[in-house]
Amino acid sequence: MNKHLLALLSIFVVVTTNAQNITGFKSENVKKQLDLETAFESQITAANLDSWMKRMAARPHYVGTEYGKENAEWMLKQFKSWGYDAQIETYQVLFPYPKIRILELTEPSVYKAKLKSVPVSGDPYTEQGEELLPSYNAFSRDGDVEAELVFVNYGIPKDYEELEKLGIDVKGKIVIAKYYGSWRGIKPKLAAEKGAIGCIIYSDPEDDGYVRGDVYPKGAFKNNTGVQRGSVMDMPLYPGDVLTPGYGATEDADRLDREDAPTITKIPVLPISYEDATPLLEALQGPVAPVSWRGGLPLTYHIGPGPAKVHLKLEFDWQLKPAYNVIATLAGTEFPDEWILRGNHHDAWVHGAADPVSGMVALMEEARVVGALAKKGQRPKRTIVFCAWDAEEPGLIGSTEWVEHHMAELQKKAVAYVNTDGNGRGFFNAGGSHTLQTMVGEVADVIMDPQKGVSIKERRIAKDRINGGDDKFELYALGSGSDYTPFIQHAGIASLNLGFGGESAGGEYHTIYDTYSHYIRFKDPEFAYGAALAKTAGRIVLRLANADVLPFSFDPWHKTVSTYLDEVMKSSESMRLEVEKHNKLIADNAFYLAADPTEPFIEPGKKEAIPFLDFTPLQNSMMTLESTIARFDSINFYSLPDSKLKALNELLMHTELALTDASGLPRRSWYKHQIYAPGFYTGYGVKTLPGVREAMEQNEWTEAGEQIKKLALTLDKLNNHIEALCSIAKN
Amino acid sequence: MNKHLLALLSIFVVVTTNAQNITGFKSENVKKQLDLETAFESQITAANLDSWMKRMAARPHYVGTEYGKENAEWMLKQFKSWGYDAQIETYQVLFPYPKIRILELTEPSVYKAKLKSVPVSGDPYTEQGEELLPSYNAFSRDGDVEAELVFVNYGIPKDYEELEKLGIDVKGKIVIAKYYGSWRGIKPKLAAEKGAIGCIIYSDPEDDGYVRGDVYPKGAFKNNTGVQRGSVMDMPLYPGDVLTPGYGATEDADRLDREDAPTITKIPVLPISYEDATPLLEALQGPVAPVSWRGGLPLTYHIGPGPAKVHLKLEFDWQLKPAYNVIATLAGTEFPDEWILRGNHHDAWVHGAADPVSGMVALMEEARVVGALAKKGQRPKRTIVFCAWDAEEPGLIGSTEWVEHHMAELQKKAVAYVNTDGNGRGFFNAGGSHTLQTMVGEVADVIMDPQKGVSIKERRIAKDRINGGDDKFELYALGSGSDYTPFIQHAGIASLNLGFGGESAGGEYHTIYDTYSHYIRFKDPEFAYGAALAKTAGRIVLRLANADVLPFSFDPWHKTVSTYLDEVMKSSESMRLEVEKHNKLIADNAFYLAADPTEPFIEPGKKEAIPFLDFTPLQNSMMTLESTIARFDSINFYSLPDSKLKALNELLMHTELALTDASGLPRRSWYKHQIYAPGFYTGYGVKTLPGVREAMEQNEWTEAGEQIKKLALTLDKLNNHIEALCSIAKN
Repeated sequence: MNKHLLALLSIFVVVTTNAQNITGFKSENVKKQLDLETAFESQITAANLDSWMKRMAARPHYVGTEYGKENAEWMLKQFKSWGYDAQIETYQVLFPYPKIRILELTEPSVYKAKLKSVPVSGDPYTEQGEELLPSYNAFSRDGDVEAELVFVNYGIPKDYEELEKLGIDVKGKIVIAKYYGSWRGIKPKLAAEKGAIGCIIYSDPEDDGYVRGDVYPKGAFKNNTGVQRGSVMDMPLYPGDVLTPGYGATEDADRLDREDAPTITKIPVLPISYEDATPLLEALQGPVAPVSWRGGLPLTYHIGPGPAKVHLKLEFDWQLKPAYNVIATLAGTEFPDEWILRGNHHDAWVHGAADPVSGMVALMEEARVVGALAKKGQRPKRTIVFCAWDAEEPGLIGSTEWVEHHMAELQKKAVAYVNTDGNGRGFFNAGGSHTLQTMVGEVADVIMDPQKGVSIKERRIAKDRINGGDDKFELYALGSGSDYTPFIQHAGIASLNLGFGGESAGGEYHTIYDTYSHYIRFKDPEFAYGAALAKTAGRIVLRLANADVLPFSFDPWHKTVSTYLDEVMKSSESMRLEVEKHNKLIADNAFYLAADPTEPFIEPGKKEAIPFLDFTPLQNSMMTLESTIARFDSINFYSLPDSKLKALNELLMHTELALTDASGLPRRSWYKHQIYAPGFYTGYGVKTLPGVREAMEQNEWTEAGEQIKKLALTLDKLNNHIEALCSIAKN
Repeated sequence: MNKHLLALLSIFVVVTTNAQNITGFKSENVKKQLDLETAFESQITAANLDSWMKRMAARPHYVGTEYGKENAEWMLKQFKSWGYDAQIETYQVLFPYPKIRILELTEPSVYKAKLKSVPVSGDPYTEQGEELLPSYNAFSRDGDVEAELVFVNYGIPKDYEELEKLGIDVKGKIVIAKYYGSWRGIKPKLAAEKGAIGCIIYSDPEDDGYVRGDVYPKGAFKNNTGVQRGSVMDMPLYPGDVLTPGYGATEDADRLDREDAPTITKIPVLPISYEDATPLLEALQGPVAPVSWRGGLPLTYHIGPGPAKVHLKLEFDWQLKPAYNVIATLAGTEFPDEWILRGNHHDAWVHGAADPVSGMVALMEEARVVGALAKKGQRPKRTIVFCAWDAEEPGLIGSTEWVEHHMAELQKKAVAYVNTDGNGRGFFNAGGSHTLQTMVGEVADVIMDPQKGVSIKERRIAKDRINGGDDKFELYALGSGSDYTPFIQHAGIASLNLGFGGESAGGEYHTIYDTYSHYIRFKDPEFAYGAALAKTAGRIVLRLANADVLPFSFDPWHKTVSTYLDEVMKSSESMRLEVEKHNKLIADNAFYLAADPTEPFIEPGKKEAIPFLDFTPLQNSMMTLESTIARFDSINFYSLPDSKLKALNELLMHTELALTDASGLPRRSWYKHQIYAPGFYTGYGVKTLPGVREAMEQNEWTEAGEQIKKLALTLDKLNNHIEALCSIAKN
């Protein structure tokens, strides 16, 4: 490129930057905000993330540990030093520590599972011996069972359909399921529903081991002794402390008896390595597993039941432990009662360098710089609250208890919650309330990718396009799996979940190998993406904190929810056709004729015909919303006087609440949001329009009809809300 | 069901059977033919297949062996005893026997490949020591090479595209490819084109080993020492004797110098077991293989090149060997010069219980019963020729030399060729000339499935429907892989390939484990499907032999070829859009932006825009054909006098010839058929409308245009042929 052209282009870039409109800001305030953000970005220092991670991930710090407490107190000190009004809010939460873990193959041969991950050379953190939390699944019940083993693939609903076709019943058996395919807690939940008396979960090398890449310490992936810890609490029912559903687990709170706690598993469950799984799987006979069930171990995968028989004995030390949430507040200059919340958890299963420390240190760096800017007079208009949650790993406990405890105040004051968790190298991923999509897209447009010199939005779209996707930036819908859940799904607070990844895959998740040593070799060696995350989340927080008009946009929300409605309607149609086809095949005896007579075969049953559902209430509500939103979009709110803007914002910040219903979802009233929820049988995976969709999936057609009406009322509530916003401009 | 209804239904069934029309027969001749077929079926005796297999598969009998000769002479004796005019026609064909086979890993560690399959308990045939043919790929050239190793997945074109993206060149390297994904001969052919100097092929347990099921002898699948032998002759160029392309390899035939034989590989190639492949793959470094490349071995699949270095030394004893084709003729009573040919090969790689003896013994049982019926006065109107081919395994040599040798007579006298090869338990599969689809469907409608008590057609359709297919019986199109190739693709004789399978999978193919012991445990233990095959092929042969009007139908042919034309047109459109999209991604720098900078990345090149092809000549020819065929179908040929019927049949039997072009396909003139051909880069897999389709796939757009015109002329030739058929009725 010649110099003149370059100069010309530079001018052009400057000009367009100056002329940039950013959603939520009067044109006269744009420059000031962008200058603030530029100042903020320029002070983000990757080296801080590095040294803080080294400190926080130096030793295991799961809830209740001394080192977890030290981390909380150290963070508290930092926040205070940066000018925050900070405190630790402590809850007393039930947390099981594994006392006895026995798993053995007793027939046809004997093998005693080692249940032990090995230290590896080059990673001193893996040599901390007894301090490393033994591998287990938190909120498994105690148990001592012995039974024949059955391999159930991922142990998700369609796997049990397959077993039914083969005439295999898990009643009275112990199941062994692969990790993946769903959130882990679904596996023991379903197994128990099907009558199993125990559940083993293992990491198969196809999903999480040598098939994916070289194993640790040679590469990043799971070696034969690595075990993924994790909660199996029934979080799709309610997350948080199992003994205090719906209210804060304060010291003097009423508590359920442990025996009555519905979110503890019904059967004992234990995670194991693929080294320990191999002798168990090798000892199975019975039908060879379907092709898609077969994993990466060098053996023929059989289903059983038996002749393999296993003995599983688990006993936990069930104690109340203190969960330390660090809450650091920087009061806003103009609207102190409008809060922008920004959180990440600080507890880990072991060292948790990636999960959660990589996100935690980005948050701290944001807090440091925001504090520094405030000290220099650039204090935000609205209040910013930085939160470091404890006890996320066992079940989003720290955040959930805090939200439940402060529910009334939060529903009054919270504008939005911005979450992060583990972070890596690669592509920007953002999920959340679609009312925030425009604003997040604008921020993603100005953050530079550390590797490619284009915006993180452009890079992300490039990747999507290579994979056949569209030329668009979109938020994904939030299910569960991190601390945004109580905010969006219980309290109805607009939420975001941000992170980078896609170029830093590994097998360290929830193992003793998620260490600083592993992180700086395989995740984000220079903390460049940690810094990018701080810049992104920080800009989002600052825009929310300083906006003249809170940057909620309804058009992207409407477009997205319309696609959900289309999906659900199409799905009802395709389910009906599928049932018709299935019943025709049965009538024609086709399943019998196609079956191999030397293999087990159970004639599949005739399915009940699927009724036509009346979706018109939803279609009509969405149509009304479309025109109301068009009216809203035609109003120039920026020209309103400050008093009206204040009223507008006070209403705008409660938009997400209009999408909740106090009665919650069927069979799980804790979940109030009517657009997004974690799936009852997927766990983390989102179900959009969950009331309607899950009723359909469970073949509850009467309920589906009721949920359509309920959802239409919710949509009408949003419509009224937007109409009220419009009328502020008029009056 | 009540008794009266049952009685009523029984009557109804009898009535419909009596009233059955069968294509090709005057209504007054239907009963006679059906009675003949019933008599034929009733005499088919499964026990014969059993005892004959035990005899023929007792010892290895590849071409040139004493036992192969004994089998041929024994069959000759049988045919003669059944009343056939039988003889052995011998060709002298080049056949390489492995003298030296050395494969060793020389760096970074040392491993000498065992190249030895182990005998297994319970199968005495595997204990025949030196008599078992060593594992090798026939028509690999001699060679002694040492170089770095590169893993190339299946070694097919799209794998090399992937390697190119990764910047990996196989020039000067030795490649290791998995079996499957294409016919094996494509792997060394492509590797040589890409500059590799050696090729190793191994059976990965994911495709062919413990991942699929328990291994031999516990189960049917390939154990860690099993090796698939097989030809790597460049059969897509021409099959048959490498030294006598296009003419019979008679004793005194002119022969190419071996050095000039174009169908011998350009580089040495050796097949190995997964036991032998493991140390080689473990020694590779470089990029981790793409997800879809990874197999079932317990290791991380790397591509290389190196540091693994291997030494491959192969030397063969290149000798002319006698190939014994057994040809048994039963002259027809009315039309001795109209031949129905029925063939199967008799040579095997080792014992070949499944491949080919299971099909061979079915053919012999057909011959026995047809002979017995003839002796009782039910001799067919047309001549039936039973053929037992030698030297099929090294390259369809016995059949090809015979067809080339007798080309002129065959093109004059052959009505159709009906092929079988290995047979198993399960579902009826039939491929071939779509003019025969109606007739084959009618036969499949009356053959009972041995396991389910419905017709083999009904069972096959049930299976297709369960897998999402239509409620229709269709022939698949013939590529290559068995002895029909010279008949249909070179001589233009209507052909069929028949067999059963789908419930008898195993890993014995071309190994020392394809034995009688294996067959009766895992394939077709009671020879029920062997008997069903004899019944099916026998009925087809008898219908062709006795038809009043030869049962060729043009409507199914037209429907099928129309779908091929649609495919090709759609493919040209989707290729164009794909190139446009690709070039847009390049223009937008998307590949660069989406790439992980820590991994090797080669910017993909801009592709040349794909021109619009003018398909109207084909569309017009097909439209004309449609109306000509409608005219043909409106004529009642059955009412014509015998003299006209004779003239009609003499023309009808040459229908397939109208679909050939004397100049053959581009770059491989041996292949004359313009509708079906084995793919130049798939080997066995069919390419329909091959001239046009392969030109497109190779981005030869000018050639594609030329091939469209050539194919239109061929279609017009068929149209003239059908018009001539119609005018016989008129004159």
